[in-house]
Amino acid sequence: MTAPGIPALDLTADVVTLTRALVDLPSESGREDVIADAVDTALRGLPHLSVARVGNSVVARTGLGRAERALIAGHLDTVPAAGNLPSRLADGRVHGLGACDMKGGVAVALRLAATVPAPVRDLTYVFYECEEVEGDRNGLARIGAERPDLLADAGLAVLMEPSDAGVEAGCQGILTADIVVEGTRAHTARAWQGVNAAHKAGEVLRRLDAHRAERVVVDGLEYREGLSAVAVRAGVAGNVVPDACVVTVNCRFAPSRSPEEAEAYVRALFPEYEVRVTEVVAGAPPHLDRVGGLVAALGAEPRPKLGWTDVARFAALGVPALNYGPGDPSLAHTAGEYVPVAHLERCEAGLRAWLS
Amino acid sequence: MTAPGIPALDLTADVVTLTRALVDLPSESGREDVIADAVDTALRGLPHLSVARVGNSVVARTGLGRAERALIAGHLDTVPAAGNLPSRLADGRVHGLGACDMKGGVAVALRLAATVPAPVRDLTYVFYECEEVEGDRNGLARIGAERPDLLADAGLAVLMEPSDAGVEAGCQGILTADIVVEGTRAHTARAWQGVNAAHKAGEVLRRLDAHRAERVVVDGLEYREGLSAVAVRAGVAGNVVPDACVVTVNCRFAPSRSPEEAEAYVRALFPEYEVRVTEVVAGAPPHLDRVGGLVAALGAEPRPKLGWTDVARFAALGVPALNYGPGDPSLAHTAGEYVPVAHLERCEAGLRAWLS
Repeated sequence: MTAPGIPALDLTADVVTLTRALVDLPSESGREDVIADAVDTALRGLPHLSVARVGNSVVARTGLGRAERALIAGHLDTVPAAGNLPSRLADGRVHGLGACDMKGGVAVALRLAATVPAPVRDLTYVFYECEEVEGDRNGLARIGAERPDLLADAGLAVLMEPSDAGVEAGCQGILTADIVVEGTRAHTARAWQGVNAAHKAGEVLRRLDAHRAERVVVDGLEYREGLSAVAVRAGVAGNVVPDACVVTVNCRFAPSRSPEEAEAYVRALFPEYEVRVTEVVAGAPPHLDRVGGLVAALGAEPRPKLGWTDVARFAALGVPALNYGPGDPSLAHTAGEYVPVAHLERCEAGLRAWLS
Repeated sequence: MTAPGIPALDLTADVVTLTRALVDLPSESGREDVIADAVDTALRGLPHLSVARVGNSVVARTGLGRAERALIAGHLDTVPAAGNLPSRLADGRVHGLGACDMKGGVAVALRLAATVPAPVRDLTYVFYECEEVEGDRNGLARIGAERPDLLADAGLAVLMEPSDAGVEAGCQGILTADIVVEGTRAHTARAWQGVNAAHKAGEVLRRLDAHRAERVVVDGLEYREGLSAVAVRAGVAGNVVPDACVVTVNCRFAPSRSPEEAEAYVRALFPEYEVRVTEVVAGAPPHLDRVGGLVAALGAEPRPKLGWTDVARFAALGVPALNYGPGDPSLAHTAGEYVPVAHLERCEAGLRAWLS
């Protein structure tokens, strides 16, 4: 029995049907109330789960007294629609907003929650809000802050981020910084009276061009780092020598480096410039020693995750995590995103085998 | 007798009083109707002048049948006010919007128009609109297009642009171009899959930094050229390797170079990049052979004009021109602009001697 206004989700439907039903529920970041109500209501109908709600995030836990507890998580929100609704099934793929990132993964997790009532390890399912927006709105971070008890007793976590239905272990950290080059304004008709900050920034960009990012091996996985200018801004007026040029760099660093080490690394490359670090977030080590059993059960060859994902939030809580989800990560946030049916089925079967 | 609503200008008042009266008349570019009406009405009261009106520009000519005709010009408009109204007299300076650029010069010209009824050479006075805005609104250009007969019979022109009450001969040309550096987008977590256009632009900026602008001597005057980046723009998103970086350069070139030569010069510096020329305007040669008599009469040592002024429009009409006006050009467009009383008096006396 569903309350008025709350869409019914049939968690026993096949994974393709369930994926499409989720795609068709509106859930742009910050507007997850409808999908969260639907997931919450469906999970509360399952007697083997106890359900908690934190904002528009839903946590459902078994309480079987198993020796181990694992966590399976996926976010409910999507980026804004791009003419890619409603869902459609074609060519063995579910197409539509969020199909890849990451309602396919959420559908797999919901199917398991409903159809594996007595898993061999206790389970915590987390369906959360606001992954696609600023970190201080992130639903997983909010649960960690308000109800850490719901997360911290897990021995490992599976994040259903699109990973081509394979295992992507750990994730790299991110540092963003502004490199500020200063000069002195002048009229361009008397340019020699000034110091052109844009001209001076040529050395910063040249150094970035010459820089060769490192490849760092952690647990046998090669993390390929990166240091990229993502923005350059200079300009006062068409007849003015600019007195400032700001080069914004985005650094991806291996999980073996701490944020402090990453910051020191970037500063050492530009010792003579002002470097303003605007954001730095740690990565997550692959922890193959602690997630190896799961990797083996899934029959997957682990790859390093080069992007940053919420596995880093689990790592910060002391819970080793890996990425394992259907869909090609390079399709995330594209208007043409889709998830292959074969990925959905492979992920569901892999996790079901590990739980049974 | 002044028509209702038109402010009266007393052209026989001293040059300081007249400068202040002009400063206190509103005349932001595009809104010169009040000042143009006042100037028009005052000049029509002088029997030795015939007056024509083109938009909000006013042309007044003597018709004495002299062997030579000279032109004296100043623009009526100012940039927008910056808390610098009304005018005030302090420390031997007239302060206020446009005092320097260039109502002081206009006051000098209006005084001469009223008080030298029988000059030794025929005179054309031009008071024009919209100098401070886009070139296609320029009042002098409009007169040249609609009534070239009012301008083209002059043997030389004096433009009352602020020149420290000295002679600044000719002017340099301006070329503006975008240097477009292209790359290939990629996610910064996989930066090696793209080509970072900002990194590649480092070579453009480094080359600008190393470039030494030439000093070109024309008629014994040294024109110091310039080539400056005035804007750099790159950036797609914080996690995207940018696929384009545009460096906007502003080139000031000596009047001995044609616009075509200036363009070829800039292109030759960046042969491997796309160079989009967005604006190019010729300079004006000093023509000391043709304006030497005036320079001698003013007792001034001519200097090269490095900025671009409307003397280039006169040059294009075949009328050699020089800049000669009160005020420090570096104060133009500043909130604190002023014109020294001594400059006003020196310019008035210098021109009066030449006309008498």
